[in-house]
Amino acid sequence: MENLIQPRILKGFRDFLPASEIQRASLIEKITEVYRSYGFVPIDTPVLEYTEILLRKSNGETEKQVFRFEDNGGRDVAMRFDLTVPFARFVAEHRAELYFPFKRYHIAKVWRGEKPQAGRYREFVQCDIDTVGSDSAASDFEILSVMKAAFEKIGVPEIVIKINHRGIFNRFLAKIGAVDRSEDILRTVDKLSKVGKDQVKKEIEEITLSKEKTELILNYVSFSSDFQNTLAFIEDLAGGPAEDTKRLRDIYLMMKAEGIEGTFALDTSITRGLDYYTGIVYETFLTDLPQIGSVCSGGRYDNLASLYMKERVPGVGASIGLDRLIAGLEQLGLTDTRKSYVDAEIYCLNAALAIEYQKTATFFRSKGINVEVFPDEKKMGQQYALTQAKDIPWGILINDKDAKSGTMTLKDLSTREQFENLTAEEAAEKILSAKHR
Amino acid sequence: MENLIQPRILKGFRDFLPASEIQRASLIEKITEVYRSYGFVPIDTPVLEYTEILLRKSNGETEKQVFRFEDNGGRDVAMRFDLTVPFARFVAEHRAELYFPFKRYHIAKVWRGEKPQAGRYREFVQCDIDTVGSDSAASDFEILSVMKAAFEKIGVPEIVIKINHRGIFNRFLAKIGAVDRSEDILRTVDKLSKVGKDQVKKEIEEITLSKEKTELILNYVSFSSDFQNTLAFIEDLAGGPAEDTKRLRDIYLMMKAEGIEGTFALDTSITRGLDYYTGIVYETFLTDLPQIGSVCSGGRYDNLASLYMKERVPGVGASIGLDRLIAGLEQLGLTDTRKSYVDAEIYCLNAALAIEYQKTATFFRSKGINVEVFPDEKKMGQQYALTQAKDIPWGILINDKDAKSGTMTLKDLSTREQFENLTAEEAAEKILSAKHR
Repeated sequence: MENLIQPRILKGFRDFLPASEIQRASLIEKITEVYRSYGFVPIDTPVLEYTEILLRKSNGETEKQVFRFEDNGGRDVAMRFDLTVPFARFVAEHRAELYFPFKRYHIAKVWRGEKPQAGRYREFVQCDIDTVGSDSAASDFEILSVMKAAFEKIGVPEIVIKINHRGIFNRFLAKIGAVDRSEDILRTVDKLSKVGKDQVKKEIEEITLSKEKTELILNYVSFSSDFQNTLAFIEDLAGGPAEDTKRLRDIYLMMKAEGIEGTFALDTSITRGLDYYTGIVYETFLTDLPQIGSVCSGGRYDNLASLYMKERVPGVGASIGLDRLIAGLEQLGLTDTRKSYVDAEIYCLNAALAIEYQKTATFFRSKGINVEVFPDEKKMGQQYALTQAKDIPWGILINDKDAKSGTMTLKDLSTREQFENLTAEEAAEKILSAKHR
Repeated sequence: MENLIQPRILKGFRDFLPASEIQRASLIEKITEVYRSYGFVPIDTPVLEYTEILLRKSNGETEKQVFRFEDNGGRDVAMRFDLTVPFARFVAEHRAELYFPFKRYHIAKVWRGEKPQAGRYREFVQCDIDTVGSDSAASDFEILSVMKAAFEKIGVPEIVIKINHRGIFNRFLAKIGAVDRSEDILRTVDKLSKVGKDQVKKEIEEITLSKEKTELILNYVSFSSDFQNTLAFIEDLAGGPAEDTKRLRDIYLMMKAEGIEGTFALDTSITRGLDYYTGIVYETFLTDLPQIGSVCSGGRYDNLASLYMKERVPGVGASIGLDRLIAGLEQLGLTDTRKSYVDAEIYCLNAALAIEYQKTATFFRSKGINVEVFPDEKKMGQQYALTQAKDIPWGILINDKDAKSGTMTLKDLSTREQFENLTAEEAAEKILSAKHR
């Protein structure tokens, strides 16, 4: 006998057992349904791409984390670390075949060799939507609306989507003479909730070399009031009304008209770390679990595919981080606890009746009932244990006498109530009426 | 301005544009629904695994094709090339957490650095099911039944599932004194339909070094008649009835009882290339397109996870090769031609009415209607072109007068018939009744 290999997986990677995978599939199905209901269409791109395509614009941090190697043909390739860069490449490559505004969703795995830690994995799923080819308040609002609808569909009762506008902040930075360092300032402000005000103050002083500018910036990003007051405040600091503040106001009016403005907060400290955002930016927090961080983020960008083509393609998008969301839902006790999709189990009382069991199963399936047949004549205790482990609601017992008379016993596995001598029709009706109750 | 990077993807990889991805998603949804209706539950495993885990039992061919590299932590890792090896590792690793018989489905991408050619890709999707922990005719039959049901659900009218039994063939090889070379003989017979009888004859002579044995083997694998006659023929050649022929007969009786035996053929030349099969094996062909090869294959194995644990886990499984299937459906004109999931487009007649459009969209979505809002006040020709490209059935026009009176014009985009002055309720009813017709 050969030596056994210890079965194990790589650090930071995970197996999904049925209960976890059912839960993940259930979330993806709900999110997909909502994305589709707004007119987003699916695309897919390769997991492996030329490293040159994926990493051209990245900072050193991403480069260190990416799974990169030389393939058998000597090509420098890498596994995608997000769905945005491949989407930019996709839009540039297929622009002649697409219709604009182009609205796509893409729900898929991405890989980053991050240091594994609680809630951080090297393989995880992102659920992205983007609308490209329109620079309108309607598109901005639609992304926010679909985010809210997705969380509602998932069954998360309380979220807050914190919005801000990069353009207004940049206008303010220009006014106080700090716009040349805007990227560094944005990245520092982005850490505010994590590292605290004192640390941010210290770092901004180092960037601006001015206590006065630092105070002005901290004044801006610390302000907190309702949406309209905050908007008035930053509009004033940025030098008065302009396209950017009009845009935020238009979005707010749409929220109000739909009666969903309560879900949104204008938060002047939201900046998003990524360089390419130019308009609104947002992060989403579970009201009862803000400490796990944003579960859905995004924003508007001026030009998605600037690395690959000359035409400018403005757009707006968002991405749900499914794995962090699941971790949050688990902590809140809001996860789908199904353990199978089976409505009824046909037990094996007598292996000689196997044909009868299969025929009965086929009949039930034709009625839209999901049925599993226990394949072996094992002890009933073992068969019941399986249906219990899988949380299956109904059991079907067909003995020799039943087989002759074309009947069966239907058992409610939660109450243990039994219904004897039912025809297949009668049993199916009972299961269906309970299923649709 | 930086130099532009030519947007391009790796050879053998593909982008999926919306029409293709909708089609793929539609097939996956149908296959998933059927798998679930038989009690299979989903799992997931990492795309990357230790090379040692994936390649221990492979032959040189696989090793050459796998995407393998050293990760940043110096680990020898590889991308999975099928879903069976990871499943074997999964069962061994989690056996204490699973209930047996364990029935899982796994629909996911796998990677092989094959020479790209028509219908062969380096990234493709497999749709696997396996039942492990039962060695019963019921489990064998169930896999065949679910395969047939899946193709029916997909809307493929005519398939033939060709079955054979490795055990019977091995018994025959033992009888003629050729069982010590059974693996080589099986692999050679597997090529029969591709390379022809003469070539196979030549190779088997080289393997067995016996013209007589070669004749006997060719006689076995060339026989063709109906299921029962063929079974009687090979039973006789193998030395008479035994467990293996009883198993095939039991499976046939189940098919007959369900009236699906017409879909199945007992084909003595089917062997499957892979080593681990020990019982029934099968391949599935589109009746009108046999030349593209098998679109769903599998079989029974004695021991799934022998590399990773001592306990024997018998099982039976099948895998639909989604990409080859799609290629076949395209040739047969059987593909889903939807281009979006949108039922109705709300056109933008006046950007000032954006709020009205969004509210109307939300109302329709609450009724279960998928609605897209055109975000910009573009020329109507351009807006119509988009809805035409996306095959959207209904258009909704709301002008200033409508906005005031709370009405709209509903337009059937295929007939161009218009219904004016409808309330949102009335329009929704019209769309829904057409949708469910």
